[in-house]
Amino acid sequence: MSELFVRTLREDPADAEVPSHRWLVRAGYIRRVAPGIYSWLPLGLKVLHKVEQIVREEMDAMGAQEVRFPALLPREPYEATDRWTEYGPNLLRLQDRKGVDMLLGPTHEEMFTLMVKDLYSSYKDLPLSLYQIQTKYRDEARPRAGLLRGREFVMKDSYSFDVDDAGLQEAYDRHRVAYQRIFDRLGLEYVIVSATSGAMGGSASEEFLAVADIGEDTFVRSPGGYAANVEAVKRPLAPEQDASDAPAAHVEDTPDSPTIETLVALSNERFARADRPWTAADTLKNVLFMLKHPDGTRTPVAIGLPGDREVDGKRLEAAVEPAEVEGFGDADFEAWPQLAKGYIGPGSQNGGSLGLDADGKGVRYLTDPAVVPGTRWITGANAPGQHVYDLVCGRDFTSDGVLDVAEIREGDPAPDGSGPLTLARGIEMGHIFQLGRKYAEALGLKVLDPNGKLVTVTMGSYGVGVSRAVAAVAEATCDDKGLAWPRNLAPYDVHVVATGKDAAALEFATELARQLDEAGISVLLDDRKASPGVKFADAEILGMPNSIVVGRTLADGVVEVRDRASGEKTEVGVDVVANHVIHLVRG
Amino acid sequence: MSELFVRTLREDPADAEVPSHRWLVRAGYIRRVAPGIYSWLPLGLKVLHKVEQIVREEMDAMGAQEVRFPALLPREPYEATDRWTEYGPNLLRLQDRKGVDMLLGPTHEEMFTLMVKDLYSSYKDLPLSLYQIQTKYRDEARPRAGLLRGREFVMKDSYSFDVDDAGLQEAYDRHRVAYQRIFDRLGLEYVIVSATSGAMGGSASEEFLAVADIGEDTFVRSPGGYAANVEAVKRPLAPEQDASDAPAAHVEDTPDSPTIETLVALSNERFARADRPWTAADTLKNVLFMLKHPDGTRTPVAIGLPGDREVDGKRLEAAVEPAEVEGFGDADFEAWPQLAKGYIGPGSQNGGSLGLDADGKGVRYLTDPAVVPGTRWITGANAPGQHVYDLVCGRDFTSDGVLDVAEIREGDPAPDGSGPLTLARGIEMGHIFQLGRKYAEALGLKVLDPNGKLVTVTMGSYGVGVSRAVAAVAEATCDDKGLAWPRNLAPYDVHVVATGKDAAALEFATELARQLDEAGISVLLDDRKASPGVKFADAEILGMPNSIVVGRTLADGVVEVRDRASGEKTEVGVDVVANHVIHLVRG
Repeated sequence: MSELFVRTLREDPADAEVPSHRWLVRAGYIRRVAPGIYSWLPLGLKVLHKVEQIVREEMDAMGAQEVRFPALLPREPYEATDRWTEYGPNLLRLQDRKGVDMLLGPTHEEMFTLMVKDLYSSYKDLPLSLYQIQTKYRDEARPRAGLLRGREFVMKDSYSFDVDDAGLQEAYDRHRVAYQRIFDRLGLEYVIVSATSGAMGGSASEEFLAVADIGEDTFVRSPGGYAANVEAVKRPLAPEQDASDAPAAHVEDTPDSPTIETLVALSNERFARADRPWTAADTLKNVLFMLKHPDGTRTPVAIGLPGDREVDGKRLEAAVEPAEVEGFGDADFEAWPQLAKGYIGPGSQNGGSLGLDADGKGVRYLTDPAVVPGTRWITGANAPGQHVYDLVCGRDFTSDGVLDVAEIREGDPAPDGSGPLTLARGIEMGHIFQLGRKYAEALGLKVLDPNGKLVTVTMGSYGVGVSRAVAAVAEATCDDKGLAWPRNLAPYDVHVVATGKDAAALEFATELARQLDEAGISVLLDDRKASPGVKFADAEILGMPNSIVVGRTLADGVVEVRDRASGEKTEVGVDVVANHVIHLVRG
Repeated sequence: MSELFVRTLREDPADAEVPSHRWLVRAGYIRRVAPGIYSWLPLGLKVLHKVEQIVREEMDAMGAQEVRFPALLPREPYEATDRWTEYGPNLLRLQDRKGVDMLLGPTHEEMFTLMVKDLYSSYKDLPLSLYQIQTKYRDEARPRAGLLRGREFVMKDSYSFDVDDAGLQEAYDRHRVAYQRIFDRLGLEYVIVSATSGAMGGSASEEFLAVADIGEDTFVRSPGGYAANVEAVKRPLAPEQDASDAPAAHVEDTPDSPTIETLVALSNERFARADRPWTAADTLKNVLFMLKHPDGTRTPVAIGLPGDREVDGKRLEAAVEPAEVEGFGDADFEAWPQLAKGYIGPGSQNGGSLGLDADGKGVRYLTDPAVVPGTRWITGANAPGQHVYDLVCGRDFTSDGVLDVAEIREGDPAPDGSGPLTLARGIEMGHIFQLGRKYAEALGLKVLDPNGKLVTVTMGSYGVGVSRAVAAVAEATCDDKGLAWPRNLAPYDVHVVATGKDAAALEFATELARQLDEAGISVLLDDRKASPGVKFADAEILGMPNSIVVGRTLADGVVEVRDRASGEKTEVGVDVVANHVIHLVRG
């Protein structure tokens, strides 16, 4: 400790929102260099190396072969797959001294595809799985939580190449098992959930989420085994209704009711229905936004959903990718004067209307799965202070399509009928994709099949957040005193703390450290001239699984062995402590 | 081999100028992604990892602590030391989504300085040596020779921090020893030579050069032990001469003598001297060039040197760093009309002259160490077809300073009087610098000394080209058949080649591979359906230290063990071959 390049901090860093970030910085494991960009100090790097090694072993064990691509990449391959554009501002672009466009790789599908195309040409060469553990770059709009969402980070990415769909399914399944082994070895509590494929494209994909309240991802589970990222939940269409007895739509004055709540209250007071009170679910809320497409153009979209539901921003973003969502501002309202702010509806009352015309002009109108033919609604009448009642879907208005982006709520039914959903949050630790033939087609990766015919290769893409895993494990194991590493990831097996001014204590501690070191146990020896209080606090912040306190009790022939996670303290005789600790460490 | 991601190529890659580049590509160890940017395939990555591990072990053994900094760095620290500008076009710069200037780190002096400043504050914290093995970026004007000069490459860089000069010297010496151990373990023939510090700044520095004809660096050695990169050779000033008996300078018509050779011939014919013939060494050649400074401004410089010497481009570049050298073009001659192209001289004949005036205006005139007061010269008379004779330095012209950039020649005396120099070429594998206080001063790294006074820390900076070492070892060991790795760096210990259509051969080879694998020997098994010729050629290209050929001779109870480096073939009995190979590998 007197020589180790580490300093613990008494204060939380100003930008630390989550415990793992706070403790990794305070314990001197990492330091911030720029937003979302960190340096690894000696203790942090040891943990990172251990995580890398676990990932490497499991990837090797499943038969994947390790390679390493550069981070600095040419533009052309990403142009061929359109990702140079689709990645938008998340891609770090630069020009070299000759003005050649380059990028810092956010993920390497294109490069692996081209490499396999370069080397392989026959179905006999396949199947093939390649992986790398490598530094990646994404210019996140909101880097946060330390290593959890960074702009430069370490990932294990792998890619499978197969001649047919069955082969892809097998490679996918083998990755799935390897990932379970990796996250089991990391000691993470995780769930495997259905996921959206996003900018990656492809058909099937699943995420491995470490369960954590501070996670950025929300997922749902049902008693019957359904599990999905909320972004990937596909609510089924509601059953159509018979609206043949519905009265004609009628516009009513609804002064001072700009919100769903005030509209429901006014409706119950002025237009009470006989059978039951109106609720927010009877109203049709129409939310406007602009889609900014990768080519820079902007188009307006309205989404109609029951008034008791909100649009879930992340579900919306995931649904419209690679387009980005922007607010519908005053300038947009000026450009679309038929839209009466706060009183927009899909009907033709007051000359307004949503939905595209035969020429594809107008405001695209997309509706929630609950808005189906025959459903009856109270909604805006396209004039300030007016709403329309008994507006029937299919009779009085139509939709340009379904957009399922309403927030998912605790208790909502699982889409597969497996019971009510519960919600929780998680950290995305891994993501496995069946990419299919998108990249192979764009870049011309074909092989000869047994009949001598050229067939396009089908691919999978698989990622593990390696630097993120360091933070996720820290998050899962830290407490209010500091870090508390599991044995297989701790920078050192034990922390030997020599206390007091008695030379005998430091002498015994040093000799014990030497013995343990000889037995292959890695030891952090606190040999500093500092108070016992400082040393104990540091041992708790740094978080080795066990510490051995050598001090006052030495005269009685015992030292104290502490378990960091449980806080348990055991007195152990000086003559047996080395063996005691060796057994603890080796399990 | 039937599953390994590798393909050997029959043809040399078009851009391969040197053997290591040719073979690393042809053997499927690396692949080019862009100029100076390579991917590592499985075999290449195994070698890289072994080199990394040797470097890591030796750095750990000398007490340096491993950390890892990001490659994507903020501009500000490099602005503070002026390197944002001084690096010129070699620095890869980019802007993030918010327009913030960033760079890809070419070397990390600034970042380490700031990190130590962040953690440490007292002389008691020092000495400290930190290192990282990390990916670096330099936008080389002429990337070449595969991994030998790339734009993205792996380096081990370390930095020492000390409170005084004696501490720096000790850290420097310890790095020097560690580097010797590293390059010894890599099996490289290397020399340690004095070097220039270049853009890094600092006082003393030495380079570790792997001796290789294809090396980019030229170094000199003397029998008495002098060794230096030619860039670092400082020739002493020639002794001044007595020119009191010299005639006045006289301009002569010298038609048709635009070159030194023609001028010497004409002088001997028309103005023959009594004592000896004129030689090129009697002429003063004045070479013009433009210096482009990091701020973009350009200034003209003339260098005067004996006509029997050429300017050495690399010595010139090293001497004027961080400025860059550009040619003196037609537009420049137009801007400086007193310079008569081909007949330039430092005298005032015909109204011309070189050298700065009292106001610092004019063309800066720098001279070779051979041009000292009292030396007498034939040189241009500043008019076409005219030269001036008996122009005496100190009497007829003066110099603005010494610039020692003439080429060093075999047989030149060593500057320290240790005998005649011999020249050779080498690959720069390592470079150690005593930086001193330049970075600590620029970034404010101070610690309290024992008297409670703030003192500026003194630093060293030390680099090993890790990916370059893979190429340097390949270069030193390959032959006309392919790669030939030393045991400690080979991707696999042995290559087992099963030949023939006899199932027994593949069976025995597979069982042998299994036995060796169990004994901890790593085996590459060629189990392909290919001809023996193809397999033997591949084994030679891939370059494992030993191969074991299992085939025809199996019926006689023997297999053939081949030594890749020597080409030696030994028949070994099938019952003892496993042990035989285990002994070979373990040494």
